[in-house]
Amino acid sequence: MRTSIATVSLSGALTEKLTAAARAGFDGVEIFENDLLASPLSPEEIRARCADLGLSIDLYQPMRDIEAVPSDEFGRNLRRAEHKFRLMRRLGVDTVLVCSSVSPLAVDDDALAAFHLRRLAELAQDFGIRVAYEALAWGRHVSTYDHAWRIVEAADHPALGTCLDSFHILARGSDPKGIEDIPGEKIFFLQLADAPLMAMDVLQWSRHYRCFPGQGGFDVAGLVGHVMRAGYRGPLSLEVFNDVFRQAEAGPTAVDALRSLLVLQESVGLTEPPAPVVPTGIAFAELVTPDVEPVSEVLEALGFARTARHRSKPVDLWQQGEARVLLNTGPAARRDGTGLAAVGLESPDPAGAARRAESLLAPVLPRRRAPEDAPLDAVAAPDGTGLFFCATDRPELPSWTSDFEPVAHKSPTSDGIYRIDHLALTQPWHQFDEAALFHRSVLGLGAQESVDVADPYGLLRSRAVTNADGSVRIALGVGPAPTADQGGRAQHIALATDDLVTAARRFRDAGGCLLPISANYYDDLAAKYEFTDDELETYRELGILYDRDADGAFRHCYTETIGRVFFELVQRDAGYRGYGAQNAPVRLAAQHIRRPVH
Amino acid sequence: MRTSIATVSLSGALTEKLTAAARAGFDGVEIFENDLLASPLSPEEIRARCADLGLSIDLYQPMRDIEAVPSDEFGRNLRRAEHKFRLMRRLGVDTVLVCSSVSPLAVDDDALAAFHLRRLAELAQDFGIRVAYEALAWGRHVSTYDHAWRIVEAADHPALGTCLDSFHILARGSDPKGIEDIPGEKIFFLQLADAPLMAMDVLQWSRHYRCFPGQGGFDVAGLVGHVMRAGYRGPLSLEVFNDVFRQAEAGPTAVDALRSLLVLQESVGLTEPPAPVVPTGIAFAELVTPDVEPVSEVLEALGFARTARHRSKPVDLWQQGEARVLLNTGPAARRDGTGLAAVGLESPDPAGAARRAESLLAPVLPRRRAPEDAPLDAVAAPDGTGLFFCATDRPELPSWTSDFEPVAHKSPTSDGIYRIDHLALTQPWHQFDEAALFHRSVLGLGAQESVDVADPYGLLRSRAVTNADGSVRIALGVGPAPTADQGGRAQHIALATDDLVTAARRFRDAGGCLLPISANYYDDLAAKYEFTDDELETYRELGILYDRDADGAFRHCYTETIGRVFFELVQRDAGYRGYGAQNAPVRLAAQHIRRPVH
Repeated sequence: MRTSIATVSLSGALTEKLTAAARAGFDGVEIFENDLLASPLSPEEIRARCADLGLSIDLYQPMRDIEAVPSDEFGRNLRRAEHKFRLMRRLGVDTVLVCSSVSPLAVDDDALAAFHLRRLAELAQDFGIRVAYEALAWGRHVSTYDHAWRIVEAADHPALGTCLDSFHILARGSDPKGIEDIPGEKIFFLQLADAPLMAMDVLQWSRHYRCFPGQGGFDVAGLVGHVMRAGYRGPLSLEVFNDVFRQAEAGPTAVDALRSLLVLQESVGLTEPPAPVVPTGIAFAELVTPDVEPVSEVLEALGFARTARHRSKPVDLWQQGEARVLLNTGPAARRDGTGLAAVGLESPDPAGAARRAESLLAPVLPRRRAPEDAPLDAVAAPDGTGLFFCATDRPELPSWTSDFEPVAHKSPTSDGIYRIDHLALTQPWHQFDEAALFHRSVLGLGAQESVDVADPYGLLRSRAVTNADGSVRIALGVGPAPTADQGGRAQHIALATDDLVTAARRFRDAGGCLLPISANYYDDLAAKYEFTDDELETYRELGILYDRDADGAFRHCYTETIGRVFFELVQRDAGYRGYGAQNAPVRLAAQHIRRPVH
Repeated sequence: MRTSIATVSLSGALTEKLTAAARAGFDGVEIFENDLLASPLSPEEIRARCADLGLSIDLYQPMRDIEAVPSDEFGRNLRRAEHKFRLMRRLGVDTVLVCSSVSPLAVDDDALAAFHLRRLAELAQDFGIRVAYEALAWGRHVSTYDHAWRIVEAADHPALGTCLDSFHILARGSDPKGIEDIPGEKIFFLQLADAPLMAMDVLQWSRHYRCFPGQGGFDVAGLVGHVMRAGYRGPLSLEVFNDVFRQAEAGPTAVDALRSLLVLQESVGLTEPPAPVVPTGIAFAELVTPDVEPVSEVLEALGFARTARHRSKPVDLWQQGEARVLLNTGPAARRDGTGLAAVGLESPDPAGAARRAESLLAPVLPRRRAPEDAPLDAVAAPDGTGLFFCATDRPELPSWTSDFEPVAHKSPTSDGIYRIDHLALTQPWHQFDEAALFHRSVLGLGAQESVDVADPYGLLRSRAVTNADGSVRIALGVGPAPTADQGGRAQHIALATDDLVTAARRFRDAGGCLLPISANYYDDLAAKYEFTDDELETYRELGILYDRDADGAFRHCYTETIGRVFFELVQRDAGYRGYGAQNAPVRLAAQHIRRPVH
């Protein structure tokens, strides 16, 4: 199917929007009237710019408050329409969106509405233009798609059809099945938007909270299925009003937008991109650091051993059980300080995983490696984290570890940490929903519920994506509104142990600093649960936090922060699904008290 | 009445919150459990800190999901409660909030609820503690204040009373009149919050959008009236969950919060602060600039003349009709570049206006002036703009102009600009609602509706405050979420003329640069209104924008921006109430294209 996007969905001046849409790979655009009015380009120049960019102009929108009004008012409306039709000729666009009237002058008279729309269509036809009539969810008298269609049917003019908008249909709770009763050739246009499920005024919901398909709670794919079965063959066009996207850079938003349409088309069976290859584990986490000492000290205290060194790059491999941490002191580190730069994902088919990612517009990372290095297929996640698809010591696949030269080392602690439990990645503030969609669609992970966490200085949101057996867990987090000082919010690596108390003690005894937790927290634990005094005293001493859900318990504690990274030690009962989110405010408050080591 | 604030209403660590509340002048606080849990201070230390700061601890909150549950669960709840009562003794607080249960285990059985609450109260009494039971708007079986009161009445225990919360009552649409039927001594606590009127899920509404009384749409004062008539004599306590306040600095938020309670008490007749003195005009706008030339050139081209110079400061007075602009090249200018620093408000009683402002916690500005200068009463608005209460050439009052020495000058243009129509002040992103409350309560201005304006790079909001005859109009604006580059969003001074075309032409002919407006805008004007081609051509040539409401028309155009300031020329029909907001997207897009002069 052809793909299109309404200019209102992207930030910036009209030309920025067009460039972003074209670069992302859209076939066409809907030109939103306000974007045209504000543009210094003439309609002819806009047309030429679109042609240069390889974009068709699929729709001009909107015309409002046209139909079912008193006749003198309708006369003025026709005059206004004629002006706009002339403009559309200059733009080279042949379809106009007419929204059902919200005017207080409009009367509840379907016959009059049909008569007026027929008159409008006659005029449009003279200009070679088609009118697509759409029910706004808050239309004064016409607010459902089937009602709009009945009026179009009654008007019975070849230049008049209907426009369907997934938001207006699904927000009203209409059954989209009836779409199949509309002849496909009378569906002139299809606009797609998702939205989080919220109980709120539908106009405000629509104007501020729309999002791209797959980012919200509507069954947009189901609706598209009905539209396809009706015989629609026009573009799939995104029309998203969203306060955040209005501010975010147009380029990345356009890519996210097109990805959502690609995923949508796959789910409806319209396309068959390479199948997702779900990762089966976390092969490694890669830290970059300008100063190897502080991180090495923490890793050593945690029981890791430096077991190997990369043959051609300044990268060390630290290992304990199946937990592997790469320590990279290359050039990137000197720029940004200590941070989590990349994740190695165990993949049964690394090349296939990369093909999947590439087909869904994930930027493929340049492979700056020596000729003798093993192939590493890597893409960038929306937050810039590198995702490496790889295999560790499996006979059928080359192992990424073969790029590393073993070094003499003491054995790592054998009964301590056995793998990476999860990674917590901080997302750019405007890409929280996109990040979940990316990890779901590109990696085939499942997304859990989003939770709010009260940091002392603002509200955070967190949402985890996991594979079925929990061997890959990534917690995506986003800070409060983007103030300047929040760029550096820390990421973390959570390490799994079967005996948290021993692991934490060993870390501390080896010189590691555990994050101290408020004594008041333990009084609350005593009120909530029946711990022995000894247990509580041990938890307090080590800063261990506790949570429990229906299926099990979760114990966890934290190291101090180095640069933008810290470590968590976790002991997770098999059934426990969460990440101790209810303890996060206490942890965050404690971290605000301690300054990062450097 | 004593004033109090829940710690959850303020940003930061517990000690920051306490300090901010005390500095603002609150008498007490409610300690929110999570703030205590996260604090490194012990309960005894918190108690001592509050005592040092002169704050009482009025409430500990909350206890949840206590009542009407199976008996083994209730046993655990009592155990938990006993822990918390011990904690409260250490804190030195004698009232605890118990919210109506949201637990899925709770049953719909008022008698059982009353029985459990009585048991809880008996236990509390042993600790010298009172239990205040409150209906959450989303409580599972108890969600209205009268229902909660019936249960309290049935439980009939001296240590059990009710807590009223204006949000829970007004968000449910309950009639607060029934509050008067509750004996005053059984109302143990009163929590106050306002909220914008929104149709949305009440839990989300409450958790994210509460605001201080007077900032939202509820009749909080009316509710407080009922509570007073019931005989309540406890504190008025603010409990506001707000995503923005969670991030904003605690100090200013606490001052805003207390101001809202002072205004509330006045409106209920509980206090009589100095009456508001409504300004009767704009005496001057004061620009600071590091380089006098660019602004002088624009003022000259606009027809202003430099008529006087301050006797002791580097400040020039420029005048045209009743429009006066001060140009200040003092030290502040070199720090921040060209900007709008202060507004002179014509006041029938400048000293009285300042007393009013001071009584409502407006920071009084230091008067760095020479001994011979006229007294200038000045306070700072929430955005930092200086507000000077003054008189211009009125016999009964000293005139601020007497500090100025006339200089030889050409006459200003006599038939051009005659006064300042309005000022547009950019507000800090987190103080939009506060700014409107400040201008209403401190200055006695009326607030118009808030409007959304689509800037190409994000959504802006704007809200005007005016006096009755429109001689003082201030448009308060706020940008989209706070990204780093938006500190410098421009303010502007709108100048009134009776003949915009002549004034704009004269400005251009004198070398001024008018902001060019997209030609497409004029095509749209032609579609909407019946202008002659000549008129439209003139508007296009001069960049004049047009708007119309039921009572009149509005024509306006803009100069280019200097630093953070630009000028608008406006011709306003008497009846027109707006500011051309619907043209703002076109103007903003044009301004993004032009770079500021310096």
